[in-house]
Amino acid sequence: MNIVAISGSLRKGSHNAMLIHVLQELAPAEMKIQELNIGNLPLYNTDDEAAFPAEAKALKDAIEASDGVIIATPEYNRSFPGVLKNAIDWASRPWGKNSFAKKPALIMGVSIGKIGTAVAQSHLKEVLLYLDMRVIGQPELYLGPASGIFDEAGNLTDSAVRELLAKALAALASSAA
Amino acid sequence: MNIVAISGSLRKGSHNAMLIHVLQELAPAEMKIQELNIGNLPLYNTDDEAAFPAEAKALKDAIEASDGVIIATPEYNRSFPGVLKNAIDWASRPWGKNSFAKKPALIMGVSIGKIGTAVAQSHLKEVLLYLDMRVIGQPELYLGPASGIFDEAGNLTDSAVRELLAKALAALASSAA
Amino acid sequence: MNIVAISGSLRKGSHNAMLIHVLQELAPAEMKIQELNIGNLPLYNTDDEAAFPAEAKALKDAIEASDGVIIATPEYNRSFPGVLKNAIDWASRPWGKNSFAKKPALIMGVSIGKIGTAVAQSHLKEVLLYLDMRVIGQPELYLGPASGIFDEAGNLTDSAVRELLAKALAALASSAA
Amino acid sequence: MNIVAISGSLRKGSHNAMLIHVLQELAPAEMKIQELNIGNLPLYNTDDEAAFPAEAKALKDAIEASDGVIIATPEYNRSFPGVLKNAIDWASRPWGKNSFAKKPALIMGVSIGKIGTAVAQSHLKEVLLYLDMRVIGQPELYLGPASGIFDEAGNLTDSAVRELLAKALAALASSAA
Repeated sequence: MNIVAISGSLRKGSHNAMLIHVLQELAPAEMKIQELNIGNLPLYNTDDEAAFPAEAKALKDAIEASDGVIIATPEYNRSFPGVLKNAIDWASRPWGKNSFAKKPALIMGVSIGKIGTAVAQSHLKEVLLYLDMRVIGQPELYLGPASGIFDEAGNLTDSAVRELLAKALAALASSAA
Repeated sequence: MNIVAISGSLRKGSHNAMLIHVLQELAPAEMKIQELNIGNLPLYNTDDEAAFPAEAKALKDAIEASDGVIIATPEYNRSFPGVLKNAIDWASRPWGKNSFAKKPALIMGVSIGKIGTAVAQSHLKEVLLYLDMRVIGQPELYLGPASGIFDEAGNLTDSAVRELLAKALAALASSAA
Repeated sequence: MNIVAISGSLRKGSHNAMLIHVLQELAPAEMKIQELNIGNLPLYNTDDEAAFPAEAKALKDAIEASDGVIIATPEYNRSFPGVLKNAIDWASRPWGKNSFAKKPALIMGVSIGKIGTAVAQSHLKEVLLYLDMRVIGQPELYLGPASGIFDEAGNLTDSAVRELLAKALAALASSAA
Repeated sequence: MNIVAISGSLRKGSHNAMLIHVLQELAPAEMKIQELNIGNLPLYNTDDEAAFPAEAKALKDAIEASDGVIIATPEYNRSFPGVLKNAIDWASRPWGKNSFAKKPALIMGVSIGKIGTAVAQSHLKEVLLYLDMRVIGQPELYLGPASGIFDEAGNLTDSAVRELLAKALAALASSAA
């Protein structure tokens, strides 16, 4: 089972990238989780589809070859980052060639505040339903504050979160099977 | 009255850029509408705030010097474009230096479909409320299909839309006064 | 295949109730669509759960006995009706006894305007994901204006809508199988 | 300054009703906060507008006579309660007689969980913008868990929340002036 994962944050030491690394450790034996890069994409412009950018094509190919998609997103200004939406906009194009269609989607997010990206995820899940993904509704993963979840080395220190992540990966495996 | 306007689409011949041009013609004498460029921004990365990009600084300066903001947005995948969110993410930063605070916001959008960007605008208005803008709720401007609103030269051909736009500019002028 | 359907509008001659009747005609041979009543429920009050109202219990029983749920909703004030949310709130209770869990959900709506309940459905789909339903993302069914879809006797007069509804029922049948 | 307040929960001992009582104590001298009842309304039905229910008329009259509206809402199933939406649906009617137009709106909510009704409020704010209210974006009031905010007698025990509420009332007073 080949899963791809996207972090909505580009910064080094991103809590959401940390979360993906934790998932890679927690994944059951039959599941491989590959992190995709979205920091090398140009800003989406319809005019540029004629010469479709190689980076966007590579993103599409990886998603299409996968059995499911994990997105770990921060919340910026009560929605998900423009960087992440830009990647989704590219991968949904050109018209009729949406790379996400029919894939299971597991969404999560960690933030420094207690809301744990709940509002960002509500927008993101709407977008992914439109893209015809099989969006997993439960368990929800609104993780925060980050300071109580990771230590400074990026290790997960909250055992309840660890159990929740394992449960989420099982839901993804079931949906992707 | 100095208003800045942002189109959420970067393509040449964008209907939303056309809409801004129409607004520039319709604006009352005391209102000047200046279109801002968001196509030259890098992808937002918190790590890059230390050397804040000049293009993002210029965007912030223009917004801060204004009396109000117009955003004309397409709907991509049932939300507003990543390109537009990326610009908002930059202009909201660094922490405590949100350039949008207390400004009136007039939101509109035109699409090729009949929904006229209604769902995209619902997400966008939430973000702008968080950024402490005075978001104008009425009139709503869900414009579409575009083919019935503009001719091929980009002239507005729908007189009901013209009246709605004039009403919206009056609401903005009142809020910005 | 036993499907239950809920109209979000209580008025006689509701376009959304009409839509459910059309679905009953269009349903494939193996699918039976039963319309549920939500107009007899009390306003939800946690204190009343101790003596759970018989009408709410009947609603829960019908949903639990079903293989999938159709909701046809109007848009009131850019969300779905309070009447519909009240029914969902009852059927989600008591804690741990959510009647919607794991059921496929097909959402649609018809309105007198052209937006066709798109914003209402975006809120509704979020709620149903939380309730662990398998929400069908495509096809979307944003139907309007109603005057172009039904004649005065409630017959469906738009053949493109008929095809879309058939496609949606096929997606539901596939998800419920 | 005459402010009306609505709690989205009908249960006795509701945390959101408690919150309104705290606001009544904290209100500046010139502000009077009157709590409105929404538990006596029938389920909204367009057919019943012809003989508009007295309870709905009383709700409309109180809102129209006010200088601003406070809503304190729980989050049920990741949106605001049907009970509250039902009250809003009534007060927005009949067509052209929306009682909320132009009023300032201060939204808050307390829940037993840490998210503090953030998603419910995002839906609610969209609805109130549509109803042409002047929705206050900052400060946000996502209060929870309730157990850390109130003691068993309903007294506010969190001084940071007290300061936030005072700041919010000042924003409302400024908007209503």
